[in-house]
Amino acid sequence: MTASGELRALVFDVFGTVVDWRSSLIRQLEAFGAEHGLGEADWAGLVDAWRGRYKPSMEKVRDGRRPWTVLDELHRESLLTLLPDFDLELRLSEPEVDWMVQAWHRLDPWPDVPPGLARLHESFLLAPLSNGNVALMANLKRHAGLPWDCILGAEVARHYKPDPEVYLTGLELLRLAPAQVMLVAAHNYDLAEARRHGMKTAFVHRPTEYGPGQTTDLKAEADWDFVVRDMEELAERLCPPPAVSS
Amino acid sequence: MTASGELRALVFDVFGTVVDWRSSLIRQLEAFGAEHGLGEADWAGLVDAWRGRYKPSMEKVRDGRRPWTVLDELHRESLLTLLPDFDLELRLSEPEVDWMVQAWHRLDPWPDVPPGLARLHESFLLAPLSNGNVALMANLKRHAGLPWDCILGAEVARHYKPDPEVYLTGLELLRLAPAQVMLVAAHNYDLAEARRHGMKTAFVHRPTEYGPGQTTDLKAEADWDFVVRDMEELAERLCPPPAVSS
Repeated sequence: MTASGELRALVFDVFGTVVDWRSSLIRQLEAFGAEHGLGEADWAGLVDAWRGRYKPSMEKVRDGRRPWTVLDELHRESLLTLLPDFDLELRLSEPEVDWMVQAWHRLDPWPDVPPGLARLHESFLLAPLSNGNVALMANLKRHAGLPWDCILGAEVARHYKPDPEVYLTGLELLRLAPAQVMLVAAHNYDLAEARRHGMKTAFVHRPTEYGPGQTTDLKAEADWDFVVRDMEELAERLCPPPAVSS
Repeated sequence: MTASGELRALVFDVFGTVVDWRSSLIRQLEAFGAEHGLGEADWAGLVDAWRGRYKPSMEKVRDGRRPWTVLDELHRESLLTLLPDFDLELRLSEPEVDWMVQAWHRLDPWPDVPPGLARLHESFLLAPLSNGNVALMANLKRHAGLPWDCILGAEVARHYKPDPEVYLTGLELLRLAPAQVMLVAAHNYDLAEARRHGMKTAFVHRPTEYGPGQTTDLKAEADWDFVVRDMEELAERLCPPPAVSS
């Protein structure tokens, strides 16, 4: 365990902060619908309703109403509940439902993420601290080319954010002091919990994560250590400028 | 959970199989000794004795004589016990001991590993299944440029190999069936345990892991699914040949 306060690792919220889940899912489902003659379905509505079930589904695990269940399973259950509302219940086979659940493993990063993370990776250890399970994060890493050094987050802690165990288990696995680790997130509640445990905090603006009508997390709601437009600005502020070649 | 038997992921033993711990440690300690005026110390002897304490130190955790303790801590304890035998006890500061323990985070891969793993990574999810803790594996990944997609192994299972929990937790985190996952290792005991849980097995020859006088694991002791010279041969056998450009 290193005691120094020097920043060593950046851990990231993923859905919304690193990947644009909404556009990526709508794009995948629209292509799927066109291919399967389901073009008229309200795919954007389904995606919004699906994500709407995200917090309530984790809440049942967080408050003990059900045992630990990974996000892939929660995604699947939520989707099955919603299909009748979208007139899709009888029109999809089980492998097709599986394919839709796996769409969360194929989300695209925001455009600033590949260059920003590549530069941050030169100076810091990088890891997701997400509610997504390890397999989901590993597949997303492969799909989006994310330079993670390890995978932290909900599954290794068997708790969902913002339960303290997620942050504390992440710190334990890194063997770093809280002040040596910064959470990078587009969500104020997540940063508040990280700060409560002594971690550094960086807020990234993602004003269209929930689409054009987004009403939450439009601005930093506390004096986070960094407030940035995107990952490229974070890299500019955290990393030394490249040496000028003579 | 995917039910198909198609191979999807390769998990690797690391010390000896992926990295040449012995030569890397001797090289680091010799350079350290030269720099600190300790050139006459028996560094190879210290490294061999240090590794000699590896299995006994884990045994106390495995049989319940002590609670879960990460490998970094076991390495540190073993080193402190050995320093008097090598006349180094009074000649090293605490930061210098820390630096020596961290030498395990800076081990070099065998020469076939970078090209072999790069090719395997195109077709399979890759992860370490090591007794090394997550921070050690993450630092080793950065040092040696290993293309891991996630980090499995002892710490996330809170058990040391060959306890079944390490293999079973790895499979659970991957959300794959045992037959979809292959352990790649230079040690027969490790492969035997993986096979017992239904995993595929690949034996890699590392006849000089323990130096010129090695007496163990000189050959495959069972009909493992693959027996290979090195990671490049494994890639040749598992991956389709590159398309011929016209």
